Parts: sequence; structure tokens; C-alpha cells
Amino acid sequence: MRARLLEATVELLVERGFSGTSTTLVSERAGVSRGAQLHHFPTKNALVVAAVEHLSDVRREELAAAAAALPTGRRRTRAVLHMLGDHFASPLFVAALELWVAARTDETLLEAVAPLEQRIGRETHQMAVELLGADESRPGVRELVQATLDLVRGLGLANTITDDARRRRRILDQWADTLDEALAGGARDARDARDTEGER
Amino acid sequence: MRARLLEATVELLVERGFSGTSTTLVSERAGVSRGAQLHHFPTKNALVVAAVEHLSDVRREELAAAAAALPTGRRRTRAVLHMLGDHFASPLFVAALELWVAARTDETLLEAVAPLEQRIGRETHQMAVELLGADESRPGVRELVQATLDLVRGLGLANTITDDARRRRRILDQWADTLDEALAGGARDARDARDTEGER
Repeated sequence: MRARLLEATVELLVERGFSGTSTTLVSERAGVSRGAQLHHFPTKNALVVAAVEHLSDVRREELAAAAAALPTGRRRTRAVLHMLGDHFASPLFVAALELWVAARTDETLLEAVAPLEQRIGRETHQMAVELLGADESRPGVRELVQATLDLVRGLGLANTITDDARRRRRILDQWADTLDEALAGGARDARDARDTEGER
Repeated sequence: MRARLLEATVELLVERGFSGTSTTLVSERAGVSRGAQLHHFPTKNALVVAAVEHLSDVRREELAAAAAALPTGRRRTRAVLHMLGDHFASPLFVAALELWVAARTDETLLEAVAPLEQRIGRETHQMAVELLGADESRPGVRELVQATLDLVRGLGLANTITDDARRRRRILDQWADTLDEALAGGARDARDARDTEGER
């Protein structure tokens, strides 16, 4: 019953947005009585935060399974980036976006959303590091992984009002190649040289 | 009076979000009578779209003025990226984000927002190409400029619920160096080589 309520909530966040999602609509869609719903989730905020958390747990396991099938060798980086790009174009991203944007102007919601956003951010970063085989002890590598995740987040946002899959694919192919070269070449050599020059 | 209404609308979008912005609140904040407001903007949708369009016109002129003061030579790319990063962390981005997200689940609003989103996207891309001195006739360069704009869009989104200025700066410094090397090195050489290899 809990899972049914959470899945109905995500569907409604995607279809109608945060302001169009009500606890009444959720209990109707899930086929669960209002009393039972209120027992599990006493407020709309409790419901939407639990829904995004639930979906993120489901997606993490799906991604781990998909990751096992990724190619090794030279085609790997592209495959990893396409997987991350698709992840940020999924219903989870859309539902989370609705939540983050609503939380921006709703302090009570923000208190519940901020820790979840941080946890998801950390987990996604860790997954990207592992999938890319990135060595974050080398200067600049951590920033390139972060940039990659901010890139797919931006692509996810661009995808919300138009289907952006083809453009996304071209951009990620190019970034995969650039990222490979940067990770292979010592990411911050040029930067260090430039900083030294600036200090002279 | 028109400008006052539009500026009050942007302020309210930033402070209270799309669903918290009403035409009544806008006329109160702008000190304009309801009748005069309805004369200029008969609906909330007309008002919010005009407000984001107005702010984007104002910001475009501010950016053009700021661009004239950018350094030349090796420090230019970083300076350009910081300027773009700050642009996507400004109230314009936040107001536009509120609009894009609301339009995702509101067909009438989407009809008005989609052409504006496309126009702003084209103009921002053109500005980035000029500021970076990027030669888009070379393979891969267009995709790297697009990736840069999707990156700052993702950074803008990350900035909405936490102040992300320090992290943004580090990421953009690294991106600037990687971008410089990629633009200097023939962006898609590695990719072409790889594609050829894959076809064998």
C-alpha cells in the first residue's frame, strides 16, 4: 500500500506538477482510503518527499544493474554519459525538479528536501566516479566529475519542455571525448601553469 | 507603469514562485490600479511571460556592457564562464525557471513560453560563441559551446536551494581550462578516430 501511494505521487508530480498534486488525488489514484493514506503520510510534504526518496532508491538499483552491462575500454565513457543523461531525463528527475523548485519558496518543504537533495547528490557523484573510473586524488578530476553531473542536470532541465534526446546525445558524445582526454592528460596542468603566471 | 508591473512580477516570481504570484499581488506591489494592470496585461500568463521577456532584454544589455570589460588573452575563457555562471544564478534564471517548470504542466502557458525559451536560448548561444571566439565551423565546437551552456544551466539549478557560488567557481575554472585545450586541439579528432575504429 505504501509503495502504491508513493508511485501514484510520483505520477501526479510528473503529470500535474507540485501545485497540481493533492493528497486527495493521490489516494484516488492509488485506490487507497483517505484514512489509510493519512496514517502512512499525515501531510502532503511527507508524501512527496517520501515519494522522491522511494523512486531514487528504485532507480539506484536499476542503475546498478544497468552499469554491470556497460562496455569496457574506449567506448565506456560515452556509454556512462548516455546512462547518466538518460537518468537526468527520467521521471525521477522531473519529480525531483518539481520538489526542489517548490521547496525554494516553501521553508517547511525545504527542511525536508535539503537533506534528501544532498544525499542524492552525494550518491550520484559517487556512482559517476566509480563508473568513469575517475581518480579524484588527481587535481581537477573532482571538478570534472562535478561538471559532468551539472551538465547532465542542465540537459535534464532542457529536456522538460521539449524532447531533447538527439541534441543531448551529440553533446554527450563530444563531452565524453573531451573528458577522456582531460582525465588522461592531467586535468589541471594548464590551470596550474596559468595560476603561476598570474602570480608573477 | 508597464516597467513597474513587470519588475514587480519578477520580484514575486523569485520570492513566492509561480503558484504564489497573483495579479492582485503584482498590482499592489507595483502601486498600480487593477484596472490599469488589466489594461496592460489581461491575464496572469500574459504578465509573467512579458516579465521574463522584459528582464531578459534588460539583462542582455547589461551583459553586453559587462562583456566589453572582459580581459583578452589567456584569462578570457575563465572570465567569460564566470560571467555566464553568474548570469544563470541571477534572478532572471530563477524567474525563468519558475515559468518553464509551470509551463511543463500548463499547455496554455507553454504555448507562450516555448517561443520565448527558444529565442533566449538562441541569443545566449550566440553570445557565448562570440565571447569565447569559438569557430563553430570546426567539428565538435558547436557541441562544446552547447555543453558549456547546459553546464551553467545545471549550475544555476543547483544554486536555487543552496548558495553554490564557491563550488561553481572551482568547476568553471576547470571547465575553462579543459574547454581551452579542446578548442585549441581540434575538438573532435579523438572522436573521429574512434568512430573510424568502430567501423572496422
